[in-house]
Amino acid sequence: MIIVLKPQATKRDADAILERIAAVGLRPLFLPGQERVVLGALGDERALEQLHLDSDPMVESVKPILAPYKLVGREIHPHDSIVPLGATQVGGGRFTVIAGPCAVESREQMMATAKAVAGSGARALRGGAYKPRTSPYSFQGLGAEGLAILREAADATGLPAVTEVLDVPDVATVEASVDGLQVGARNMHNYPLLRALGARRTPVLLKRGMAARVEDLLLAAEYILAEGNPNVILCERGITTFETATRNTLDLASVPWIKSRSHLPVLVDPSHGTGLRELVPPMAKAALACGADGLLVEVHCDPPRARSDGRQSLFPEQFDAMMRELRPIADAVGVEMT
Amino acid sequence: MIIVLKPQATKRDADAILERIAAVGLRPLFLPGQERVVLGALGDERALEQLHLDSDPMVESVKPILAPYKLVGREIHPHDSIVPLGATQVGGGRFTVIAGPCAVESREQMMATAKAVAGSGARALRGGAYKPRTSPYSFQGLGAEGLAILREAADATGLPAVTEVLDVPDVATVEASVDGLQVGARNMHNYPLLRALGARRTPVLLKRGMAARVEDLLLAAEYILAEGNPNVILCERGITTFETATRNTLDLASVPWIKSRSHLPVLVDPSHGTGLRELVPPMAKAALACGADGLLVEVHCDPPRARSDGRQSLFPEQFDAMMRELRPIADAVGVEMT
Amino acid sequence: MIIVLKPQATKRDADAILERIAAVGLRPLFLPGQERVVLGALGDERALEQLHLDSDPMVESVKPILAPYKLVGREIHPHDSIVPLGATQVGGGRFTVIAGPCAVESREQMMATAKAVAGSGARALRGGAYKPRTSPYSFQGLGAEGLAILREAADATGLPAVTEVLDVPDVATVEASVDGLQVGARNMHNYPLLRALGARRTPVLLKRGMAARVEDLLLAAEYILAEGNPNVILCERGITTFETATRNTLDLASVPWIKSRSHLPVLVDPSHGTGLRELVPPMAKAALACGADGLLVEVHCDPPRARSDGRQSLFPEQFDAMMRELRPIADAVGVEMT
Amino acid sequence: MIIVLKPQATKRDADAILERIAAVGLRPLFLPGQERVVLGALGDERALEQLHLDSDPMVESVKPILAPYKLVGREIHPHDSIVPLGATQVGGGRFTVIAGPCAVESREQMMATAKAVAGSGARALRGGAYKPRTSPYSFQGLGAEGLAILREAADATGLPAVTEVLDVPDVATVEASVDGLQVGARNMHNYPLLRALGARRTPVLLKRGMAARVEDLLLAAEYILAEGNPNVILCERGITTFETATRNTLDLASVPWIKSRSHLPVLVDPSHGTGLRELVPPMAKAALACGADGLLVEVHCDPPRARSDGRQSLFPEQFDAMMRELRPIADAVGVEMT
Repeated sequence: MIIVLKPQATKRDADAILERIAAVGLRPLFLPGQERVVLGALGDERALEQLHLDSDPMVESVKPILAPYKLVGREIHPHDSIVPLGATQVGGGRFTVIAGPCAVESREQMMATAKAVAGSGARALRGGAYKPRTSPYSFQGLGAEGLAILREAADATGLPAVTEVLDVPDVATVEASVDGLQVGARNMHNYPLLRALGARRTPVLLKRGMAARVEDLLLAAEYILAEGNPNVILCERGITTFETATRNTLDLASVPWIKSRSHLPVLVDPSHGTGLRELVPPMAKAALACGADGLLVEVHCDPPRARSDGRQSLFPEQFDAMMRELRPIADAVGVEMT
Repeated sequence: MIIVLKPQATKRDADAILERIAAVGLRPLFLPGQERVVLGALGDERALEQLHLDSDPMVESVKPILAPYKLVGREIHPHDSIVPLGATQVGGGRFTVIAGPCAVESREQMMATAKAVAGSGARALRGGAYKPRTSPYSFQGLGAEGLAILREAADATGLPAVTEVLDVPDVATVEASVDGLQVGARNMHNYPLLRALGARRTPVLLKRGMAARVEDLLLAAEYILAEGNPNVILCERGITTFETATRNTLDLASVPWIKSRSHLPVLVDPSHGTGLRELVPPMAKAALACGADGLLVEVHCDPPRARSDGRQSLFPEQFDAMMRELRPIADAVGVEMT
Repeated sequence: MIIVLKPQATKRDADAILERIAAVGLRPLFLPGQERVVLGALGDERALEQLHLDSDPMVESVKPILAPYKLVGREIHPHDSIVPLGATQVGGGRFTVIAGPCAVESREQMMATAKAVAGSGARALRGGAYKPRTSPYSFQGLGAEGLAILREAADATGLPAVTEVLDVPDVATVEASVDGLQVGARNMHNYPLLRALGARRTPVLLKRGMAARVEDLLLAAEYILAEGNPNVILCERGITTFETATRNTLDLASVPWIKSRSHLPVLVDPSHGTGLRELVPPMAKAALACGADGLLVEVHCDPPRARSDGRQSLFPEQFDAMMRELRPIADAVGVEMT
Repeated sequence: MIIVLKPQATKRDADAILERIAAVGLRPLFLPGQERVVLGALGDERALEQLHLDSDPMVESVKPILAPYKLVGREIHPHDSIVPLGATQVGGGRFTVIAGPCAVESREQMMATAKAVAGSGARALRGGAYKPRTSPYSFQGLGAEGLAILREAADATGLPAVTEVLDVPDVATVEASVDGLQVGARNMHNYPLLRALGARRTPVLLKRGMAARVEDLLLAAEYILAEGNPNVILCERGITTFETATRNTLDLASVPWIKSRSHLPVLVDPSHGTGLRELVPPMAKAALACGADGLLVEVHCDPPRARSDGRQSLFPEQFDAMMRELRPIADAVGVEMT
């Protein structure tokens, strides 16, 4: 950690801070410059957290040297993690497509969609039973009934199922019905939920928050790993920016950035990432080309009748065409896509 | 609602949509233009939610006419709401300052801070017992012990207490100790929590999410009112932007924007809104001048030793000076500040 | 155009506006609803520009129906434009890579870099002679000397050259030395410059502004086409967002969005788009996969000695490897890459 | 400057960089840590610009210690600058209001507006003759004719006039007609224009760019001062964010932030900052309360007929009311407002 003092700071101010650095077991450094005094603290910077040096009125700024995450980082875990999702595996050189409707709406809708996506090569099913909606007047999901339908569709197709869990009290119920638990973008900062999921072993699909820097996403994953659950799949789904042409701005550069720093697999959600179904196939291809480990994509058997996110849901035949277009690219980039 | 069709849409496509509009009880309108066919649907647009017309492949865009919120709006409730917070009232032409430390750290720290802010004119206490922190390695709050300390400080000073609740299972416990429940920025989209708070009568201090448009904030409040709890206080606390000089970008224009559309009181949090204690007093004055109903401000008896947010916490003497500077401005803008 | 009136607007207010609509030759529509009166204006909405109906105190909002651009749009020009750049062509199903250093620094540097990129398959050269720099103390480019060196390198390799022009007075000089004129992100809104370039025939490489919506980019291109120059190549180079891990946020979804609405070719600049050389190859592949017409990429013969943007410049051998990795993807997506 | 090396960097890599630091006259420091080697360079960091250490493949990150600007900073010029604008002065404890229409549209409109704002207490006139417009089909200003009208209005009211200059070739002409030259937000990064204005003595009103960090604004001002013109007035006018309720997000916290670091006066433009006339008075009051040196505000004698920005232009009677409401606040904060 590098600590820059204010111009008016005295030697005595510096000494007081150096003492506090030494007291937590770090090596203090005094670097007097022409215009500013700079202090250093070498060692595990996480020990400095407790000192809150940036609160000192004589401190101008504090610059960390080490990344604030540990368990999710490659420094202590250099090899790619492979996360099991039922019989499917995510990460480790394969491209895994998870597909299905935004929300489970009915048995017929879920079964039709599940069969279609399974037939086109999806390796896992998605479908929301508890939906976080901006307006209280929008469809909020079928709840427990939706979970049962999703399970039935998963069993019928032999695919593992992933669904969103919104809240700690729901975790056990939801976990009983599915193979993977999704934390939505709106809940990436819901630390009680992250901790509850960390205390279990069910794989967690953690979506990036709308205003979260990629480093924040890694720290959210760190919450889960720190509680003991190593089965975390990250998902880039677009961030909130000034651009209004698309629902979010899909930050694909986050994929190689994360993969160079973390061993966790990274999926891309081109449906929420763009909000427009015609942009889903090109962004899916881009995700594959830049190194993503798979997709989370919305498909509906009848998008114009979808009760949520219809505008970004693919028609089954569009999904099928997209899957066929992805395969030669997977070959070209040397990735397995079964 | 205005529905713009794609250039290739036929009369038959238009008729199909018009029929669906009529079927939900709205008045359909057919407006053939030179380059585009435009359809209209007059009546309560919330009925159209269920049609999801934007999912139709022949629809280019859908433009709502009415605001998506109802209960929080001034159209059906034109007069300012006044929300009771213990013996204090928020809204209705007075400027209410809620102050205290970011987190309750110890009995000594909380008592010292509480007495200081009470002496300087704060009308309610704040202090976090459960802290949402970006890193799992940061101080997470004292929990139940913190609640008890906060209650004691509130009783000692005669001020009502506000604290953050992170999660549905904690609501009853936290509510038993305080006079107002805060929903933090990271939880503004936590709909199960909003609904749980809506089912009670304890006042809710709802902070704007980091990536939330002001309309999203009003919709989050609508969740609480729709469940039956009218006691909602909104809080502008800055949004996430590209600017890095400040921790967030305090969007003060949201204050008059909201107040012209909603009857709910609006506070401003200049501490999180800037992240820098030297910017807190000027932004507090600006908040007062532009019509805010009060402040939520972090004060610590010893900021350099604060376990969180010390950089943005005022020293007690700074808070006192700020309060003295606010009073003549309150007089100038005709607002009561007791 | 759809005009929503305020709740308090009277029939007389509506009539006054309807009259003004009719007066500019559009068809006025009166749509009285339950809670709001809505007016319509059918025909070429650009005529309404002059009415500024949103300034009327009785108007709540104005919603355009037609896109504000014409000449750059596919509605009147459905087929892909192909823009000649010296002997190279951009657009129309081929993937064109323009490469070279950020700035021309010396004859040796430019020649070495030009030969390297030509040998690896670049189809045009880039190199800045006039550099827009955030700080006045940074290297500002070699000016006229740089232009001469760039020309020499172009002639030596047989590649066309592209360079940035900052200012109207420089246009003629710069144009005399190169085959394509670049408008940088900081100048996308420099309308005198756009008009000056529109009055010529030299191809223009127009980069998206850091805070420009894609629609603003199309309107900037419209300035050039409206003056008579059809030779415009667009370039996505990242936008300013809250994310600090990368220099900008590369908005790749803009590529298919633009290509569905405009006939102009679209390049991607993964160098500025990420700011980190290790992210350039994955983003280059993603750009190819999602339909871009080529790349603008920074390569330097000795990046650690580069006088600007070295951190994002590829080493020649990295560029060569990237080009070899792009070719199988080009084959997979059916694009020509010579 | 602090240089953090990558984990794989060797002692030899470090030595090579230390040598380069010493070679430009700075004091090199070697700080071997547990997980990373950190290097330091003490002295005037601007000398390091030429080394571009962040381009070195063994360098992970470079953290500057000193601010990148000099002449605009308070460290070498601690006292507030007062910038003369005709007979008016900006800065130094007074609150100066510059008002007028967005664009000069006609002699009648300009004269009527000028008389109104002068009568209400404006201390300078604004009015655009050359308008930068997003669409080529929008009104682009009256040009030279507009300048003459503006001059006439200024002379008739005895107020100095400020107008925007778009382009280097226009500088001399525009300067001949007015007392202050405005650089618009779209041109904040137009360095040739900044340099041209720096070579003169006419005061420059420099507006913050839509995607510019406050530090970028200070660096843009540094361009002007570095060329020799000390007469620079900064202007906060809102930044581009995801919020769509307002045209821009007015970043008022930038005002005290800048004023603590720079001696230059700072105005606020609540018209562009919000885009909505009803938000202009509250934001004007907030600007005054948080320490701004004045306002740049759009007023039109007949806003519904304005040819640009009518939605954000005040009616003359609104401006008059606002000025009357500002005075008691000025008294309360101890600022002179004549």
